[in-house]
Amino acid sequence: MATAGILIIGNEILSGKVTDQNSPYLCRELRALGVDVERILTIPDEVEIIADEVRRMSEAYDHVFTSGGIGPTHDDLTMDAVAAAFGRKIERNPSIVARIERAQGKPPNPSQIKMAMIPEGARLIDAGDLWFPVVVVENVHVFPGIPELLRKKFESIRDRFRGVPFLLKRVFVKRSESDIAHSLNDLLEEFPQLMLGSYPKIGEESFHVLLTLESRDPGYLQDALDSLLARLPEDSVHKVE
Amino acid sequence: MATAGILIIGNEILSGKVTDQNSPYLCRELRALGVDVERILTIPDEVEIIADEVRRMSEAYDHVFTSGGIGPTHDDLTMDAVAAAFGRKIERNPSIVARIERAQGKPPNPSQIKMAMIPEGARLIDAGDLWFPVVVVENVHVFPGIPELLRKKFESIRDRFRGVPFLLKRVFVKRSESDIAHSLNDLLEEFPQLMLGSYPKIGEESFHVLLTLESRDPGYLQDALDSLLARLPEDSVHKVE
Repeated sequence: MATAGILIIGNEILSGKVTDQNSPYLCRELRALGVDVERILTIPDEVEIIADEVRRMSEAYDHVFTSGGIGPTHDDLTMDAVAAAFGRKIERNPSIVARIERAQGKPPNPSQIKMAMIPEGARLIDAGDLWFPVVVVENVHVFPGIPELLRKKFESIRDRFRGVPFLLKRVFVKRSESDIAHSLNDLLEEFPQLMLGSYPKIGEESFHVLLTLESRDPGYLQDALDSLLARLPEDSVHKVE
Repeated sequence: MATAGILIIGNEILSGKVTDQNSPYLCRELRALGVDVERILTIPDEVEIIADEVRRMSEAYDHVFTSGGIGPTHDDLTMDAVAAAFGRKIERNPSIVARIERAQGKPPNPSQIKMAMIPEGARLIDAGDLWFPVVVVENVHVFPGIPELLRKKFESIRDRFRGVPFLLKRVFVKRSESDIAHSLNDLLEEFPQLMLGSYPKIGEESFHVLLTLESRDPGYLQDALDSLLARLPEDSVHKVE
């Protein structure tokens, strides 16, 4: 089972000016592909902090995805940090310079040249109709912070991450968590491999707790679901989906 | 200037089933109070991981806020982890037991007793009309994952974090980032203390880049804004607010 870490880079998230849409998107997509996201970390635009965390995540997980800090301005430091994380130099990539020139019909200006400075030995993967490719260093995929661009880039490489996806059943229960907690504990004793979540919901009329059951094995999941339904109090289930 | 770290605890976030609303809320609120959030970390429901990160954040920042994992079910492990982080025991808190009994008019059931098990020596702070208080251990504020409850709890203690807030000016620019990047670099040479953000926006008709200028000093901020406006190309500013 492949694992992943997500690194969100940007003062704008930490200062509450921008809400991170990228980690929820990546979590949903990776989950559907069967990749287990084990950590999401949001950090400021500071080279040393980014480099430390890139190195740490690269060692800890199969795949790392960074978001943010690859534009042309003063606070775009991710490429320098990824290079530093792996002890590589930053170099002007002729292929990216050529792509910029082709896209706009004139040579890049100095700010655009900055966007062509990437870690030496990086791999480039074409990203659909975008002129800027996905840059990959070791197991680190460097994505932009702009949600529309991140999605296009991820979609262009998503098939590389396809594994055995999780199957999900959701049970909406009309009781409080405290009333059903013992049933959940008993269920987990019978099905120790089951991934079971319990999420109270406030302000819903039709149910109080959403239970999520997950497994990669359809038979195991169905057996666990049947066992849960038998354990819950009569008339306590609003719906199953 | 006070610093803070936010620890989001829950497999439901990492697996993309639930979108974290709590860290954006806390970032906005803390920023408005003048607290600098330096890190947001999302981790799974595993005691050792939670304990490690609570300890690390508690050492690194003035304030730590955790969200999630304090309900009555099998995956609610935050209190155990916070106790482990500080080498404290978990104990049944008579005040919380009494509050539960008072709220529901009968003694707590075993699952509710679990919610009254907190680290020894924890401080309790009453949280408005909620029967469950805010639990504080050292500099760690233990919040629930349910957004409505987290907000009520934060509001009940927010005045404890009030410092000198940041002032913000926003400039909406009708040029690409690459066209104005050099002006931003020049601005930062003149105003090295300015917190300057540059955020391209796709799909907007009226502007292409949002610039954010922040400082705690109103005069410094106004001078930086005036300098920026003088540096930007003529007719390139859509609006300032």
